[in-house]
Amino acid sequence: MRSESAATGLRCVDCQQSHELDYRLACEACGGLLEIQYELQRLTDEPLVQSRRTGVWRYAAWMPVHDAADFVTLGEQPSPLFPVPRLGAELGLRRLWIKFDGSNPTGTVKDRSSQTAVACARQFGFDTIGVVSTGNAASSIATYAARAGLRGLVCCYTQSTAAKMAHIAGVASDVIWYDGVYDDMIRHFDAAVDRRWFFDGGATRNPYKQEGKKSIALETYEQLGRAPDLMVYPVGMGETLLASQRGWAALAATGRIEKPPRPVSAQSTEANTIAEAWRSGDDLRAKTIGYTVAEGTAVGDMGAKGRLTLRRIREQDGLAGDVPDQETLDMQRRLAQVEGLWVGPTGAVPLAVTARLAQEGLIDPDAEIVCISSETGLKGDWPPLGVEGQKPSLDLIRRTLDGVSNK
Amino acid sequence: MRSESAATGLRCVDCQQSHELDYRLACEACGGLLEIQYELQRLTDEPLVQSRRTGVWRYAAWMPVHDAADFVTLGEQPSPLFPVPRLGAELGLRRLWIKFDGSNPTGTVKDRSSQTAVACARQFGFDTIGVVSTGNAASSIATYAARAGLRGLVCCYTQSTAAKMAHIAGVASDVIWYDGVYDDMIRHFDAAVDRRWFFDGGATRNPYKQEGKKSIALETYEQLGRAPDLMVYPVGMGETLLASQRGWAALAATGRIEKPPRPVSAQSTEANTIAEAWRSGDDLRAKTIGYTVAEGTAVGDMGAKGRLTLRRIREQDGLAGDVPDQETLDMQRRLAQVEGLWVGPTGAVPLAVTARLAQEGLIDPDAEIVCISSETGLKGDWPPLGVEGQKPSLDLIRRTLDGVSNK
Repeated sequence: MRSESAATGLRCVDCQQSHELDYRLACEACGGLLEIQYELQRLTDEPLVQSRRTGVWRYAAWMPVHDAADFVTLGEQPSPLFPVPRLGAELGLRRLWIKFDGSNPTGTVKDRSSQTAVACARQFGFDTIGVVSTGNAASSIATYAARAGLRGLVCCYTQSTAAKMAHIAGVASDVIWYDGVYDDMIRHFDAAVDRRWFFDGGATRNPYKQEGKKSIALETYEQLGRAPDLMVYPVGMGETLLASQRGWAALAATGRIEKPPRPVSAQSTEANTIAEAWRSGDDLRAKTIGYTVAEGTAVGDMGAKGRLTLRRIREQDGLAGDVPDQETLDMQRRLAQVEGLWVGPTGAVPLAVTARLAQEGLIDPDAEIVCISSETGLKGDWPPLGVEGQKPSLDLIRRTLDGVSNK
Repeated sequence: MRSESAATGLRCVDCQQSHELDYRLACEACGGLLEIQYELQRLTDEPLVQSRRTGVWRYAAWMPVHDAADFVTLGEQPSPLFPVPRLGAELGLRRLWIKFDGSNPTGTVKDRSSQTAVACARQFGFDTIGVVSTGNAASSIATYAARAGLRGLVCCYTQSTAAKMAHIAGVASDVIWYDGVYDDMIRHFDAAVDRRWFFDGGATRNPYKQEGKKSIALETYEQLGRAPDLMVYPVGMGETLLASQRGWAALAATGRIEKPPRPVSAQSTEANTIAEAWRSGDDLRAKTIGYTVAEGTAVGDMGAKGRLTLRRIREQDGLAGDVPDQETLDMQRRLAQVEGLWVGPTGAVPLAVTARLAQEGLIDPDAEIVCISSETGLKGDWPPLGVEGQKPSLDLIRRTLDGVSNK
């Protein structure tokens, strides 16, 4: 039977050594990161979209899963791509778009990588997939594991939000709630991965897991009919930027577009390692970070993925920026007020960084810009507003409409 | 210029009197509910889907908005429709589907009606739209009002969840937080509507507002390629059932299907007025209700909409059932565990009622059934889980995988 996938092998991003298409987390020769290679002729000749399929499987040939029996889906539709002209006018940008990934089943962009992660777990014969996460990745991996009939082992720290923890408790077959931060658990997790106790659902090494996020580029191309000038991504481990730009590069290699859009890395100032290296021209330097409301960007030491992210940004003439939390929260609120969209802080960072880069003259006002809003605003930690209730009356309605009531 | 819409007029559901297609909330002759009439020949001859459009505007001819300049959208895609074979096997149902409306921009089915509500507010020259709501309708109306550049006046009681209140505070231009319950505010609101201070975004009267929910039927038909045997809806004011079944009736009238699916009303036992009347064969009787976790079904007095809902169920050979909160919560959890999907309580009620009706022998095990899951699980009120964090270690991972650790 012919494979659904056009994948042909793995290649090291550092020493370029080729490897078989098996479950492998690092280059045998140099320890570098691996990327999946595809037969370009097939991707060129076949139609991009399989319209009878849903989720990342609409682009099955571009994904690393051979047998459709391993596909896993919750009927995902392409996420919305829409212009935000009112906000654009405020920022002096004439062609500003948002791609809203909060419409995914668990409300975040992570559902794209979870589809390929869980399908590959099946493909390589695992009955369990594991992940360490502060919340969003945990519920997403657990969701698709349940859907596939696999066990999902999620390790989540006890400082996550009530909404995220309830979600995880609802869907996950196996949860470890732990005291401490990501770094305290990840080394034990990696040791378990090395023993092959479960399939690696983490963001640091596995070349198969993040491949689903390539669909961001493919969908955007399908919806827009062209490549925009700039794609702006929230950057934590760099997965979304790396995978999507790989998609754009493949669209160029198959002759569908002339060249990939310029990638823009958007980080919190608290964790601005890519932005600092890009501005200084130096190598990436890890930093010890504290709290940021943009939890999806809270990575101080990106390791090999960070070096690759910086390299791709430089190769593809990209940009990088960062914003303090207050600018992120202001943008979250402004977006809701002028366009109605309620995104989480991490989902507001790309717009906030775009605003800042435009102000600094680094973005052309006529550039076509797509910002990835990676999460819904419903997953946050919302303390009670503490509003005073008023006594219902017609007069209260009238005064509110006249703007004389308290708002 | 030709109208985008095939709407031709309004007709009273009781006395059948016809009215012009203007902003009108009740029949002039008898005070009955109005429904929008369409030119069937045009709906028959034209393609169902305008694939270059998004949201309910993919079916623009079937909606009551004449000028595309009044359309309002956040790039909504059709909501996912997918089979749940594992859950179906547990319930003894071989062809069970879920249509998951939690993928909408604000996470609920209300985004469908908000699209037509806000577009019609524009069409009829209003600069403000208003609604009284316990949370979901408020954030949805406010979202589309902001997107359209209108004012959104939302009246929400102070007992809503923190997540819903934060969302409303983020998007709404004008909020009234009030002490009391729905009934305390709605009479003042209705008095303001009668004075035309704003466009009526409520569920009791306005024939234009709910029309967007007709798209549930049109999408399901488009995705499935046929009518299922049964469509199961959560019922509060009955809007979703009424509008969707109007869509199915029109699909039958235009020759696309033989007959509409049988509608099934799913309610909480706390607010089971339709179920009680259906079982007894009597008229609908209002009841005073207390709290139910399925907030979207918490309506004790459905009024004219309730009588119409019951009539349509009887005309279309439908069914009605109800479940206590514990069955709703058990189904919410079971769905998450075996299929991965995390829905809100109201979104679990249709499945819980289906399970019960199947158990009672009222549903054929071979029937094709589509359950509307109307909201994401992310909008709920989640108190801290109170879990004990453990110290990270490789041994902890091993014990969890072996099932000997606490879960």
